[in-house]
Amino acid sequence: MRPSHRAPDELRPVRLTRNYTMHAEGSVLVEFGNTRVLCNASLEPRVPPWLRGQGQGWVTAEYGMLPRSTHSRMGREAARGKQGGRTLEIQRLIGRSLRAVVDMKQLGERTLTLDCDVLQADGGTRTASITGGYVALADAIQHLLDRGELKQSPLTGLVASVSVGVYQGTPVLDLDYAEDCNAETDMNVVMDDQGNFIEVQGTAEGHPFSRDELMRMLNLAEGGIFRLIEAQKAALGTA
Amino acid sequence: MRPSHRAPDELRPVRLTRNYTMHAEGSVLVEFGNTRVLCNASLEPRVPPWLRGQGQGWVTAEYGMLPRSTHSRMGREAARGKQGGRTLEIQRLIGRSLRAVVDMKQLGERTLTLDCDVLQADGGTRTASITGGYVALADAIQHLLDRGELKQSPLTGLVASVSVGVYQGTPVLDLDYAEDCNAETDMNVVMDDQGNFIEVQGTAEGHPFSRDELMRMLNLAEGGIFRLIEAQKAALGTA
Amino acid sequence: MRPSHRAPDELRPVRLTRNYTMHAEGSVLVEFGNTRVLCNASLEPRVPPWLRGQGQGWVTAEYGMLPRSTHSRMGREAARGKQGGRTLEIQRLIGRSLRAVVDMKQLGERTLTLDCDVLQADGGTRTASITGGYVALADAIQHLLDRGELKQSPLTGLVASVSVGVYQGTPVLDLDYAEDCNAETDMNVVMDDQGNFIEVQGTAEGHPFSRDELMRMLNLAEGGIFRLIEAQKAALGTA
Amino acid sequence: MRPSHRAPDELRPVRLTRNYTMHAEGSVLVEFGNTRVLCNASLEPRVPPWLRGQGQGWVTAEYGMLPRSTHSRMGREAARGKQGGRTLEIQRLIGRSLRAVVDMKQLGERTLTLDCDVLQADGGTRTASITGGYVALADAIQHLLDRGELKQSPLTGLVASVSVGVYQGTPVLDLDYAEDCNAETDMNVVMDDQGNFIEVQGTAEGHPFSRDELMRMLNLAEGGIFRLIEAQKAALGTA
Amino acid sequence: MRPSHRAPDELRPVRLTRNYTMHAEGSVLVEFGNTRVLCNASLEPRVPPWLRGQGQGWVTAEYGMLPRSTHSRMGREAARGKQGGRTLEIQRLIGRSLRAVVDMKQLGERTLTLDCDVLQADGGTRTASITGGYVALADAIQHLLDRGELKQSPLTGLVASVSVGVYQGTPVLDLDYAEDCNAETDMNVVMDDQGNFIEVQGTAEGHPFSRDELMRMLNLAEGGIFRLIEAQKAALGTA
Amino acid sequence: MRPSHRAPDELRPVRLTRNYTMHAEGSVLVEFGNTRVLCNASLEPRVPPWLRGQGQGWVTAEYGMLPRSTHSRMGREAARGKQGGRTLEIQRLIGRSLRAVVDMKQLGERTLTLDCDVLQADGGTRTASITGGYVALADAIQHLLDRGELKQSPLTGLVASVSVGVYQGTPVLDLDYAEDCNAETDMNVVMDDQGNFIEVQGTAEGHPFSRDELMRMLNLAEGGIFRLIEAQKAALGTA
Repeated sequence: MRPSHRAPDELRPVRLTRNYTMHAEGSVLVEFGNTRVLCNASLEPRVPPWLRGQGQGWVTAEYGMLPRSTHSRMGREAARGKQGGRTLEIQRLIGRSLRAVVDMKQLGERTLTLDCDVLQADGGTRTASITGGYVALADAIQHLLDRGELKQSPLTGLVASVSVGVYQGTPVLDLDYAEDCNAETDMNVVMDDQGNFIEVQGTAEGHPFSRDELMRMLNLAEGGIFRLIEAQKAALGTA
Repeated sequence: MRPSHRAPDELRPVRLTRNYTMHAEGSVLVEFGNTRVLCNASLEPRVPPWLRGQGQGWVTAEYGMLPRSTHSRMGREAARGKQGGRTLEIQRLIGRSLRAVVDMKQLGERTLTLDCDVLQADGGTRTASITGGYVALADAIQHLLDRGELKQSPLTGLVASVSVGVYQGTPVLDLDYAEDCNAETDMNVVMDDQGNFIEVQGTAEGHPFSRDELMRMLNLAEGGIFRLIEAQKAALGTA
Repeated sequence: MRPSHRAPDELRPVRLTRNYTMHAEGSVLVEFGNTRVLCNASLEPRVPPWLRGQGQGWVTAEYGMLPRSTHSRMGREAARGKQGGRTLEIQRLIGRSLRAVVDMKQLGERTLTLDCDVLQADGGTRTASITGGYVALADAIQHLLDRGELKQSPLTGLVASVSVGVYQGTPVLDLDYAEDCNAETDMNVVMDDQGNFIEVQGTAEGHPFSRDELMRMLNLAEGGIFRLIEAQKAALGTA
Repeated sequence: MRPSHRAPDELRPVRLTRNYTMHAEGSVLVEFGNTRVLCNASLEPRVPPWLRGQGQGWVTAEYGMLPRSTHSRMGREAARGKQGGRTLEIQRLIGRSLRAVVDMKQLGERTLTLDCDVLQADGGTRTASITGGYVALADAIQHLLDRGELKQSPLTGLVASVSVGVYQGTPVLDLDYAEDCNAETDMNVVMDDQGNFIEVQGTAEGHPFSRDELMRMLNLAEGGIFRLIEAQKAALGTA
Repeated sequence: MRPSHRAPDELRPVRLTRNYTMHAEGSVLVEFGNTRVLCNASLEPRVPPWLRGQGQGWVTAEYGMLPRSTHSRMGREAARGKQGGRTLEIQRLIGRSLRAVVDMKQLGERTLTLDCDVLQADGGTRTASITGGYVALADAIQHLLDRGELKQSPLTGLVASVSVGVYQGTPVLDLDYAEDCNAETDMNVVMDDQGNFIEVQGTAEGHPFSRDELMRMLNLAEGGIFRLIEAQKAALGTA
Repeated sequence: MRPSHRAPDELRPVRLTRNYTMHAEGSVLVEFGNTRVLCNASLEPRVPPWLRGQGQGWVTAEYGMLPRSTHSRMGREAARGKQGGRTLEIQRLIGRSLRAVVDMKQLGERTLTLDCDVLQADGGTRTASITGGYVALADAIQHLLDRGELKQSPLTGLVASVSVGVYQGTPVLDLDYAEDCNAETDMNVVMDDQGNFIEVQGTAEGHPFSRDELMRMLNLAEGGIFRLIEAQKAALGTA
């Protein structure tokens, strides 16, 4: 039995609260159980130097944890003077995942920056960031459509993400912190609404996993992401 | 008339939400109107190297703004690789203000770190941080008392803070962003519940202020801080 | 047809040259075609602070590219003052992969650091690093066994890695730079000699991949890794 | 009685030596007793990026202490790789204070940078920096007038600064290091030659101060600054 | 007798392998005995900002040691976040030495960057870098001549370098690590093919040297550099 | 004729002012003409980690230029976040030069740090730093002898330094900035009072120098250093 008493294929309660803060073009608080991430999408009418003059846009992401979002206080990255490897890895993953559903030509010479800041961590902060980040992104794009700055949405689909793992020999969906710490294997899966994979990142430092376990984890992820995409559509009123 | 339509001596609505996140020993969301700061107080059973073995504790603070807490997105300090001068100045102010009401001997060899992270900014983030931070600090100390780790509270009083300024020639209390941008003078005042001053920081880059204006600003601040301390007591259930 | 004229399941020529430099306890030049990485394994009789006194060892990795290992010169990370996100991500991956086949208790209070420095890049530098790094690691451990510092090898298996991708609709093995640039999907797979997965990292920024494509890529990877492990055994004289 | 045997309202001997070094457009060694700060004003015919094309100038300041300007040697900030919070706070204060008496339109598209480097510290380095810095600034502006690059002085007044504090219950003026260490309260006041306040920064980490103490400290500061402005005028030959 | 059993005026075996890697315009592995440095010369069609529009080029160098090029592992400079003083000193020396034989007007608005990366260190890495670097530089310039981008070579001569020292009272040539550690005096000499000096850097931390010792060291250096220049010519096929 | 109208073998006026500041154990303002460097020697009763427990001391140096010590303002290294290559090179040279005349065993487990801060630069700041730094060092050691903390001086000799160069074909002594900029060759020489060399650093980026020119420059340097050592003895009252 899982520490969370959930069934192996059961997600934690998911909440997507739009317009959580007032300045960002898209602002979503995403909750996967006790994990809470504030996803703010910002629009800027320019692109990075290496993209200038090509008539296309850019989508990027930054990720951070508040120092006391975790069980014991972590040092503040701004005070330490650099972002750690885990932070950089996560924000690169979020950026790639969102770019997979945006047509950069259609977006035009604009940068969409998604800031994912973890207010409270209980496992799955990167998957929550992608899932909530998509909704913030959709709101920021709607903002452009509403003001007539874009005629047509550059979004080519929806994207969501969930973790899966093997806990005491059983593949389980959406691990919380207690489960994640004791999982033998941990995999983050990102998929679009066509059921295709955008990212598959499985790690088995302690216990290598077999082809069969991989398949069973992917099945769980597929089911979970389908439900997360439903939650995104409901939140956006497009269900 | 103020942009906010408030009377000159009128505070914005103040809200202090305790237990806002689950891991910190004290966690308070403070709102001064649209300004929202998450204040997390963390306890650690050790002190900085220069205090070791002296049988006393330490209280310190860190401050940060989420990149899109502001009208236009600010660069993330962790990504830029250092905290700016304004950030360091504010976190030093918060630390000094809170240390003024803590008996370090009584606290014992512990460090209390207050993290003030601005979720949404609309002027007065440092004064909100001090005011909300005090409540988080009180909760963290109550946590020690409840667990029997401390016999007696090291708190020697309450502390709160508010800004005052001169707006179109009239001294006004608790400036929001629109007022702050156009104020001729800007002052942050920190006081304790005995009506004494802990910090007075007045700045008049554009328009030097007279002794008379100073007095009128201090009067406004005194009144505002009195009401903020009432709000702190109400939140803590000690009113 | 692939730019390299190889069959879809064909590896580039693999060369593993041991004792490539004279100071390191294990020193291997690994070549996957034109990709050349120098893998040096260093032993130090201490562990990081967070592991001290637990009677176990640590394996970690660092990765770097010489500035002109690539088509056009890249800025030197030491001169820029920090390692980029890609570098950190790769060295974390190499470290996890090697730790998966080392029994840390058996290793004892020692740190094994693997430095992977790319002399010439033509795609697949991280997979070559893992594959060649394992051989350097094995040599460093043999060094301990030969001197009687260890009675029994802490190695629990072999580990190797290869990339797979979808090139013009066809899954292909071991992409070189020209193929990698134009691949729709790119996946790095790390496996042990039992045929289990240690890492699976698939990325599809441009073209999401289906379950079927994933399976076909994993099949290719499995075959390639089997052959790489044969090459490792041959190099170590344990085939 | 004060450690310095001065009367409560007595300044230390003040010396302002112009043309102290030969390259800067304004170069003043200011001495407040044993405190010695070299203030060099440099002119550059450009403004920071955010001011370009607006037909106005900028005044900014940098502050540093030589490592052995103090009782025991401090680490060199250049070697540590960053300026500390106290340094940034002081240089921001100096910059704001000087900007308060310069008409930026009149200055035109030029930057005036004031470097304040402490050769010997004995309390009051920031107030000496502002007081001496004004004289260096005036010399740099005279340099522009003399060469016909400016027709009219952009200076709108004089500015000087002094510290006040409460020492053993008595408000005292211009604290030296021995007094500052033991003062219960410490306040830095910046005023112009009209008797208006530009900055008031009072800090009472140990002993909150009353309204009455504040008034008495401001009275002392007012008297001291009046005399410092006389000294500035005498040095500039405009008394 | 020298630890290396060489005669006092005997160089270690020198090897210059051209085209060692495939991307750089000039790529030379230089070996002075067991010291091995990879010298890659890169061409870029632009100059640093301070040289723009002057119709002349620039030659610069960067130097690094692989972490395990040495007896015990050194920390990676990229991970530590800065290049050490020794590294900066050496790369400045290499840059100056090469610039001494290049006519910058003739080179035109191009930058030639020489990367010297030490694969294996056994003393004399800086002198090997200069000696091998010259050959890489010559190859990069030939590359421009071959493609018709330059009509005439900007090279004005050849340059090579060797170390000399006083070992147990006897001046010796080309010190290896064991000799260098125990030498009383250490000097690096850079000369051109006219027999003139470009750099003379003698250091005698332990044992100041006399004019006579200096003369005898310079004689040895002169003989060694003559032979190194012969080796460069042979490698370039211009002997 | 030299821009300074000096004879080729003529030093600039040299001034050594002891006790220039009040906190340092040795504090000397050294002037070589218009070049002015403040040399402060600080004693600390500990050694760097790599020397602990070996019963010997350490001597090290740090060097900095005030931003406006030069013709046009240089960026402050503390603000830029790192010391440049030239700074590191000079402070390493100063440290080595002083260590050459100190018996580390005799010094005992103490660190002597020499801070050389350039107040005004007109060429020769590194040679002035060594020459003045020696006097500050001697004062700091006398401080230890006076207080009975040392029984016997660890100084084994005197050390001084001067620059020489070839200006319009003529070897000249002690170049000022105008001469240095136009010199074809530039050499810094450090010698002890026995007439032996401690450092010889000759650089000829523009015009390689012959053996004959080298000899003539060394002759000039020898004469100059002899007179500088006389000046040191006079300043210390040991002439």
